Amino acid sequence: LQKNSIANQIKAIVGQEHFFDSYEDRLCYSYDATIEEALPEWIAMPGSVEEIARLMALANEEVFPVYPRGAGTGLSGGSVPLKGGLAMVLTRLNRIREINQEDLYAVVETGVITSDLHEQVEALGLMYPPDPSSMKVTTMGGNVAENAGGLRGLKYGVTKDYVLALEVVTPTGQVIRVGSKCVKSVSGYDLTRLFVGSEGTLGIITEITVKLLPAPQHKESMMAIFDDMNMAAKAVADIIKSGVIPATLEFMDHTSINAVEDFKKIGLPRDAQAILLLETDGVEAAAKQEAEKIIAVCKANRARDVKIAATEQEKLQIWEARRACLSALARVRPNTILEDATVPRSKIPQMVRGVTDIANKYGIHIGNFGHAGDGNLHPTILTDLRNTEERQRVQKAIDEIFALALSLGGTLTGEHGIGTTKAKYLEKEFGSEALAVMRAIKMALDPHNILNPGKIFIADSASV
Amino acid sequence: LQKNSIANQIKAIVGQEHFFDSYEDRLCYSYDATIEEALPEWIAMPGSVEEIARLMALANEEVFPVYPRGAGTGLSGGSVPLKGGLAMVLTRLNRIREINQEDLYAVVETGVITSDLHEQVEALGLMYPPDPSSMKVTTMGGNVAENAGGLRGLKYGVTKDYVLALEVVTPTGQVIRVGSKCVKSVSGYDLTRLFVGSEGTLGIITEITVKLLPAPQHKESMMAIFDDMNMAAKAVADIIKSGVIPATLEFMDHTSINAVEDFKKIGLPRDAQAILLLETDGVEAAAKQEAEKIIAVCKANRARDVKIAATEQEKLQIWEARRACLSALARVRPNTILEDATVPRSKIPQMVRGVTDIANKYGIHIGNFGHAGDGNLHPTILTDLRNTEERQRVQKAIDEIFALALSLGGTLTGEHGIGTTKAKYLEKEFGSEALAVMRAIKMALDPHNILNPGKIFIADSASV
Repeated sequence: LQKNSIANQIKAIVGQEHFFDSYEDRLCYSYDATIEEALPEWIAMPGSVEEIARLMALANEEVFPVYPRGAGTGLSGGSVPLKGGLAMVLTRLNRIREINQEDLYAVVETGVITSDLHEQVEALGLMYPPDPSSMKVTTMGGNVAENAGGLRGLKYGVTKDYVLALEVVTPTGQVIRVGSKCVKSVSGYDLTRLFVGSEGTLGIITEITVKLLPAPQHKESMMAIFDDMNMAAKAVADIIKSGVIPATLEFMDHTSINAVEDFKKIGLPRDAQAILLLETDGVEAAAKQEAEKIIAVCKANRARDVKIAATEQEKLQIWEARRACLSALARVRPNTILEDATVPRSKIPQMVRGVTDIANKYGIHIGNFGHAGDGNLHPTILTDLRNTEERQRVQKAIDEIFALALSLGGTLTGEHGIGTTKAKYLEKEFGSEALAVMRAIKMALDPHNILNPGKIFIADSASV
Repeated sequence: LQKNSIANQIKAIVGQEHFFDSYEDRLCYSYDATIEEALPEWIAMPGSVEEIARLMALANEEVFPVYPRGAGTGLSGGSVPLKGGLAMVLTRLNRIREINQEDLYAVVETGVITSDLHEQVEALGLMYPPDPSSMKVTTMGGNVAENAGGLRGLKYGVTKDYVLALEVVTPTGQVIRVGSKCVKSVSGYDLTRLFVGSEGTLGIITEITVKLLPAPQHKESMMAIFDDMNMAAKAVADIIKSGVIPATLEFMDHTSINAVEDFKKIGLPRDAQAILLLETDGVEAAAKQEAEKIIAVCKANRARDVKIAATEQEKLQIWEARRACLSALARVRPNTILEDATVPRSKIPQMVRGVTDIANKYGIHIGNFGHAGDGNLHPTILTDLRNTEERQRVQKAIDEIFALALSLGGTLTGEHGIGTTKAKYLEKEFGSEALAVMRAIKMALDPHNILNPGKIFIADSASV
């Protein structure tokens, strides 16, 4: 009865046509791109910040959990409605409100698809650097909530480096504006950055102001082919040491190369142990000079060959290969578990060797690819979770991968977030006192623990 | 008696030789670079993070305020011991612990002087970009607490963009480590960025890990001379629109030019209405090509002349002129009040005209200089505060300057912080609900309100 009453109140706020609660609808919003899943009780698609604020006020009154959600492409369980309640789908808020060419910023609603923003700013000779592999599907709000990265992170940074200001609905239903359109501001606490990467646990992001850059004049794209994984890893460190920070410095191992080639047939070298995919950009002379330096470093590290993309088509193929990694690996076996443990870049050789050892120890398949330049690897476990015995081996392997990353001075997640999948490791990274500070902030902002509960922190019934 | 007992306990923690409470000593730690001042009860110079943690535990037990302090060069009252208590001077923690050339980071203690870090990393071909004008005196901990900017902010960003990880003593005396040496991490809430710019109110920063960059190969420095202030302001916007982001794009008005020339006699054009000081950097060909573009834009905006620094000596002179602005203006009259209201860069012409109008309206002297490229001006009021009537006019002018900045979509402070001097305007920038979120965080971390009380928030007796 109480549930019926809540459903009716939600309907009254968003309208009948934006409310769903059939089993089929609930199934559709029960999962993201991890293996986590849980059914929401109701789904609402609010059409305005006012509706969102009213929904949060209702949730506080009736005390039910709210799970904000963009496109559901998350890789850490961030939007999975772990405790039922309301899945709040934000895709109707999808207008690009302003692109300011003088002050180099854009204002977008939370549901804008990332690559739609790319297209619009690029048409004006500008650039919004963050480019997660899922950018043709993901929403800007999801990117901000999870602090999404992408291929250009090495030179240009990730989402957090571009968010200037936010409009946020707090867990208690207030609409606040934080940050500034000015590129410099140190006015009050940096709430903007607190909300970025807070995985929907501290507030619902409704509008985002991002910094733009002038688009680079010129790009050079390259593929360096290695017969020895260790030499590829060493080349990564040597490129940075040579004083060049490429826009992109990506890595694919033998398994990933072959999975992509099976899927896309674009002529990758199937026998290579590793390839590096690189891009330099900027003023043409600078991009070319940096490309030459990179080629020299790769050859000094026994690259078998370094191919420069001669045409726009060839450039696109290189990046298509990289972006297809996850989809390609996902075809190999029924389940794919993509991790993003990250280490200081000098530790990449040790990390790659360690992951290989762990895969061998537990007899499981792990493909390795990722953002080598910034130490952000994506060990991808190919498995069949219906096999309970294999599932246990997979879990042990994952535990060891994270322990290895932390022992190398790394972090649990470079760009996917903690979500549900890594919550149990968080205390190992920061210690109980730092975790207590995070919990204190969560409790201060969300006293009823109704916004995306069960994420980041290990849930217990009594507290956050 | 109770005060004596506290003094003895502080002494027992830091040692007799690092404790001071004579009137003369208290006077020395009663002010910063603003006109704010207040006497601390005691001064302690702890020598380790353990001593700092013990001092905070004591402060919680006995409930007295603690005011952490670096070099005291702050421009918003951030370190002034407004409510007495303990001035905690952090300059003994001054070791550079590590410079990692492979992973491009440095680990420094809080009291390291910023330009000492510059020298050491530059000797290795690396760069730590933040370069506040006070960098030969300021401490890294102070830079982090206030999120200091500098001349290279336009292309390279400010302190917050380089802080990877922190060791912090919380207001309740726990030692925590936040952030990661990895350039990418989205593990838990971004506490690092919450502490950066929190002005010593949320924790005492004891160790800082900063990101480094490879030093640019080449630099070009220029001075563009304008007879018309509006054309100089328009040139700033046009340079950015042309697709060039210079490393530095600084501005000095007629008053600042003449004050610096009186002081330093380096041959600045005394009759000019404004000069722009510019630097491009990077690969040599790129830096030169960008410099040419800038010159063309300045000439199209009726620059009378654009001088390129031909020698290292000439380059240094340009930047010496800019860094001398505050000291030079401070010589003109007994008191100097330096503000840093910031606007989106396209609003600079309006802001400069508005500040001039306000100066005329109230019959006061205001010099204008600053980081034009990022909209961060430093209107500098030259006054004599012994004159009560003038003091009132000055206060009205300041109120109007901030109201103007906010009305242009600006922010109260680009790089100096809110401190005591701008606390009363903060609600105007963000509204009461966002301010309530900031207060809730402060209360969650510092329940007794003993760490740097009276800053950022307007103090009242009952709450933060």
